[in-house]
Amino acid sequence: MKTLSPPQAFPPSVLECVRGIESGRWTAEQLVRASLERACAREHELHAWAYLGIDEALAQARQLDRSPCKGLLHGIPIGVKDLSDTATLPTSYGSPAYAGHRPVMDAACVALARTAGAVILGKTATVEFGATRPCATTNPHDLQHTPGGSSSGSAAAVADGQVLLATGTQTGGSIIRPAAFCGVVGFKPGLGAISPAGTKGYAWSLDTVGALATCVADVALFFDALRGARASQPLPAHGNAPRIGVFLGPFAGQASHAAIQAIDHVAARCCKAGASVRCVPPQPGFEHSLDWHRCISRYEMGRSLVPEQHSSSAAQLGSVLHQEIERGQHVDEQHYQHAQAGRLELSSRFDTLMTRFDALLTFATPGEAPRGLASTGDATFNLSWSLLGLPCLSLPVAFGPSGLPLAVQLIGPRLGDRRLLEAAHWIENTVTPFKPAPLTT
Amino acid sequence: MKTLSPPQAFPPSVLECVRGIESGRWTAEQLVRASLERACAREHELHAWAYLGIDEALAQARQLDRSPCKGLLHGIPIGVKDLSDTATLPTSYGSPAYAGHRPVMDAACVALARTAGAVILGKTATVEFGATRPCATTNPHDLQHTPGGSSSGSAAAVADGQVLLATGTQTGGSIIRPAAFCGVVGFKPGLGAISPAGTKGYAWSLDTVGALATCVADVALFFDALRGARASQPLPAHGNAPRIGVFLGPFAGQASHAAIQAIDHVAARCCKAGASVRCVPPQPGFEHSLDWHRCISRYEMGRSLVPEQHSSSAAQLGSVLHQEIERGQHVDEQHYQHAQAGRLELSSRFDTLMTRFDALLTFATPGEAPRGLASTGDATFNLSWSLLGLPCLSLPVAFGPSGLPLAVQLIGPRLGDRRLLEAAHWIENTVTPFKPAPLTT
Repeated sequence: MKTLSPPQAFPPSVLECVRGIESGRWTAEQLVRASLERACAREHELHAWAYLGIDEALAQARQLDRSPCKGLLHGIPIGVKDLSDTATLPTSYGSPAYAGHRPVMDAACVALARTAGAVILGKTATVEFGATRPCATTNPHDLQHTPGGSSSGSAAAVADGQVLLATGTQTGGSIIRPAAFCGVVGFKPGLGAISPAGTKGYAWSLDTVGALATCVADVALFFDALRGARASQPLPAHGNAPRIGVFLGPFAGQASHAAIQAIDHVAARCCKAGASVRCVPPQPGFEHSLDWHRCISRYEMGRSLVPEQHSSSAAQLGSVLHQEIERGQHVDEQHYQHAQAGRLELSSRFDTLMTRFDALLTFATPGEAPRGLASTGDATFNLSWSLLGLPCLSLPVAFGPSGLPLAVQLIGPRLGDRRLLEAAHWIENTVTPFKPAPLTT
Repeated sequence: MKTLSPPQAFPPSVLECVRGIESGRWTAEQLVRASLERACAREHELHAWAYLGIDEALAQARQLDRSPCKGLLHGIPIGVKDLSDTATLPTSYGSPAYAGHRPVMDAACVALARTAGAVILGKTATVEFGATRPCATTNPHDLQHTPGGSSSGSAAAVADGQVLLATGTQTGGSIIRPAAFCGVVGFKPGLGAISPAGTKGYAWSLDTVGALATCVADVALFFDALRGARASQPLPAHGNAPRIGVFLGPFAGQASHAAIQAIDHVAARCCKAGASVRCVPPQPGFEHSLDWHRCISRYEMGRSLVPEQHSSSAAQLGSVLHQEIERGQHVDEQHYQHAQAGRLELSSRFDTLMTRFDALLTFATPGEAPRGLASTGDATFNLSWSLLGLPCLSLPVAFGPSGLPLAVQLIGPRLGDRRLLEAAHWIENTVTPFKPAPLTT
């Protein structure tokens, strides 16, 4: 798993970095400098950053080097998706309509990361409001391919070894998809696990703050910090084998051969290593989940972005965004209520199902990152889980036929973020990366 | 019901105002001037406003008078609780830490009201962040008594006839309680019925935007506008008699004799008028709902307000707020997860129960508004419903033994905001205000 990322400029795990700083082996400033050097050297072709706060980051690192250990992330440089407010760095939500905007207060997730000792290296590039117009970010594994979106810059910066941690947000598939395309671990916690205060969203029933990292242990540590934990309970190195449900679902026809192979491979490895692996039978209603998600996210966008639609900077919004907002305003109230009712019923069905499993194993994306930057890829395998508000994790397990990363997605029970992380950690330690054979044509 | 409010400076219903403007009987400017005159004349003793935007409101009214009908609220002056961002008026969230703060963008609810043609008269006074330090607002029925909180200014301004409509927000009891104490209709919709974008909250599992008005029809019209509806379906004048469940619950011992009399009176009247009125049996788990609410709201405050806690203006936060934030940070993660799990289970129980009822009839407050301004009163009868995310409505039905308003609370089913409003409208038309006899001592 760990070999999927390109070589990194500093040690491979956050815990190792924090210990290295504590023991005096490194300074926070050294780590931040290494991060900045890598980021600056690669920015001209990756475009992972909306803003790099070079002076602020170095000043913050030096201050940390003069202080006792501040928290779980003492001295760790991180990227913050540019949908979260930062009082010391510009915040443009991926939109020219907010160019140069400087919020008066940090978002809660930013303040929590700071109080844990993290250094905000900068703001990572994002699709406009996390919704439409792609940013210029490229995939570090192949610059001709999309990194996915909307947490594009966060995924690219982590995959490229510029930072070990970055925040993300997901309404549809905005953490899982870019993490999968870039070959990093992406974690969309359960709905509401992390405070959304000060993070720009557009669909309040779905918007979720989450995290990207190079391994499950790091994403778990970051998650603890973003939830305001003072101490982190490390994931057990040799925990119990999880109960895994293999969920292919009604949209499996859209998965590539390689994506199916990846699921097979993971299921077989886990089974061999002692996990209980069972097929999940069809879940009635799931076939409507994409429609329900689209209906809810459109309706809510058509309300949440009314201020922008009517503001003096409305002309600077993308034309597709304008269309999407108007489209949302034409979603029928009854249609929305019907989708919300369907969501409630399906949630209840999955809550019952998930008493039998620690994690569902399913597709993260239809396949590898598609070529081109005009689209951030297909979210078919993400929308349903965002709709249900369940915790999801993208775990890179292979390189696909085009040589780009391929991931599986793990789904946890409601309020079971920790249970999902433990299962993912076990699976990560169990599954050796493999390279599926190219499709026979 | 309609006689509970003091005499008003302009016609008693929003619909009548909009029709009056359309027909040329009044102008928006006249309405706004009447509102402003009343507000200015009373402000020295009511302190309902954090900011009155006199020039902005008059300019906006004149512009509306030159335009064709813009929407459901064309020309109607409204109050906006000072937790919602306004780009043209200062927004201080009830806190000296944000004195003079001017957001760059309106909150979604503000923008939606504006696009419906409403005139923002000003920002209504609120408790600090809707959470702790009471504002200076007094109760228009007796200046020595609290108006309730945290939507203090909104309730007082509507009760005093300064505006027909004002926005509110509720995390615990911040709409229902002030509405009850001031004798107006307060509506806390189901969780997430109105976009929270740009409205400051502190407990994302609970925070809800809602509305206050002088009658149910107006609150329903305002609700439609705040949801972005272009047209409003009027509540039926002679709808079906609702199925009412009388819910006294495990905290009934804290209700005053007058509050119990009010429930009895409403139940008897509704029964006589043809409604089905049934007692609701005890609901297991409900007795824990206050603890679960407190645990969740504290935990989430301890995350959401970290930015303020560590900002350069932290010294200006109230000391009680500082204590509450720190207290929230000491809430155990497992305790929080337990409370969330309890909430889910109880929600599911009530969702089943509510298939049998259109509305539950229960206490809004223990009794009339207490004397003094140091506390905004007791939220015992509000927290459970906020926890469950169900729509709630405070309906004034009487004057209590101290001559202050007394209300009952109606609870609707999940996603049943409209059903609750229809039931409340029927009950409002059915129940004649009464004055309970003073308690025999």
